[in-house]
Amino acid sequence: MGVIHIDHSGDPRVDDFRDLSTADRRPDRPGGRGLVIAEGTVVVSRLLASRYPVRALLGVRRRFDELAGDLAGLEVPQYVTSAEIMAEVVGFHLNRGILAVADRPAPLTVPEVVGGTGPIAVLEGVGDHENLGALFRNAAALGVGGVLLGPGCSDPLYRRSVRVSMGHVLRVPFGHLTDWPGGLDDLRARGFAVAAFTPRPGSIPLSALREHAPGRVALLFGAEGPGLTETALAAADHAVRIPMPAGVDSLNIATAAAVAFYELARGG
Amino acid sequence: MGVIHIDHSGDPRVDDFRDLSTADRRPDRPGGRGLVIAEGTVVVSRLLASRYPVRALLGVRRRFDELAGDLAGLEVPQYVTSAEIMAEVVGFHLNRGILAVADRPAPLTVPEVVGGTGPIAVLEGVGDHENLGALFRNAAALGVGGVLLGPGCSDPLYRRSVRVSMGHVLRVPFGHLTDWPGGLDDLRARGFAVAAFTPRPGSIPLSALREHAPGRVALLFGAEGPGLTETALAAADHAVRIPMPAGVDSLNIATAAAVAFYELARGG
Repeated sequence: MGVIHIDHSGDPRVDDFRDLSTADRRPDRPGGRGLVIAEGTVVVSRLLASRYPVRALLGVRRRFDELAGDLAGLEVPQYVTSAEIMAEVVGFHLNRGILAVADRPAPLTVPEVVGGTGPIAVLEGVGDHENLGALFRNAAALGVGGVLLGPGCSDPLYRRSVRVSMGHVLRVPFGHLTDWPGGLDDLRARGFAVAAFTPRPGSIPLSALREHAPGRVALLFGAEGPGLTETALAAADHAVRIPMPAGVDSLNIATAAAVAFYELARGG
Repeated sequence: MGVIHIDHSGDPRVDDFRDLSTADRRPDRPGGRGLVIAEGTVVVSRLLASRYPVRALLGVRRRFDELAGDLAGLEVPQYVTSAEIMAEVVGFHLNRGILAVADRPAPLTVPEVVGGTGPIAVLEGVGDHENLGALFRNAAALGVGGVLLGPGCSDPLYRRSVRVSMGHVLRVPFGHLTDWPGGLDDLRARGFAVAAFTPRPGSIPLSALREHAPGRVALLFGAEGPGLTETALAAADHAVRIPMPAGVDSLNIATAAAVAFYELARGG
């Protein structure tokens, strides 16, 4: 435990960090999924403050020094090495200089995800890792209490999502709605109004949502392009749109979500 | 003119499309800048409807067919070829299947950029091409009349910005504020209130901006991370923030801008 110097890239103690570009697919691990990987001091700091059980860190001395406050009392190996050896281990040059790996804890249940305050986001078919990560970052910035993933969503703990989220996937509670669209009825039973985002005619403008849904709201978003399925739309209480000029594509999904999160935070 | 079949990648008639990954740096052209390149049917369609003088198109038959309505009466070469020859010309495989190139017209003046309706965005130090492109997409979606680029901004007509903007850099008027921060005084003289986005204490929440600035607003944004310079902040009429919980980074610049654009569009 504590600080360990690594002086060759073949050292098996740093195997958790090896070949990072394929580290998300690990048939040898539960569910075939990889470890949770945090890159850079900001995200590593968030990982250290999260519920995720950290296994080890690997980085250059300067980055460890920057994180000294976060690392105090930490009982896991801190592998210090050179930028060159680090690049050989992970398979490419990392200019962020520090990595941490954590195990995946048990997923949160729906009651755990919705147990806080603020609106929640519910996603259907959001398969793009960057969009998913960006959505978590926006959720953290704009007071969203949790995120529920319906069918067709990618893994928020994928390395790229963690990075784009600035580590907020490790902070904003999330879980899975396995019963679809029945899980939306369950949210309704828990006191949420379900508001589905769609540009279709007849949807109410976002600025009017609070009038229709003064209590807690579950904001339902589909992927950019296809949007929500008919099944999901039919299960919602409200259809909501962000007004746009003619001839403009819909916004990026994470941006549309940010605008919706802002509107609800704005209303208090 | 009209449809021309290309059957080998060395054909000099398609030189405008050659080595596309470096096509933005062209020391042989005015200002060392490349042609404007549109990729995919959506963006090509926007280019064809824009003020940009199109020089030629290169693509596979199917994509030309999809654009038949937009191409009717067009007096420029339409080079039809195979996906393989197209990949050899541009230097990599393009799954969008169609490209168009245009010349850079004379830049718009400030009066031309601000001559429409709605708020305008003014940027300082926004050097990231993807953020810049995303900001234009959000501007188009949320009713922004124009974008002015202060010092340190990258070129919105760079290929990646055009793509990320979904072609909206070709539609939303933009120009340069070469006098900095004097150009902000000029905007004020034109009737704009200048609202600078900054998380610093004392800034007003975004939802209160309309009370302070009921007329046309110039929304001033700096790069993610460093934010606006003191010079720019001192030249603004209002300091505005998007309220966020403690411990959260600022939003991505294009996302913060979308939220601000939405707030102003919301107010009508």
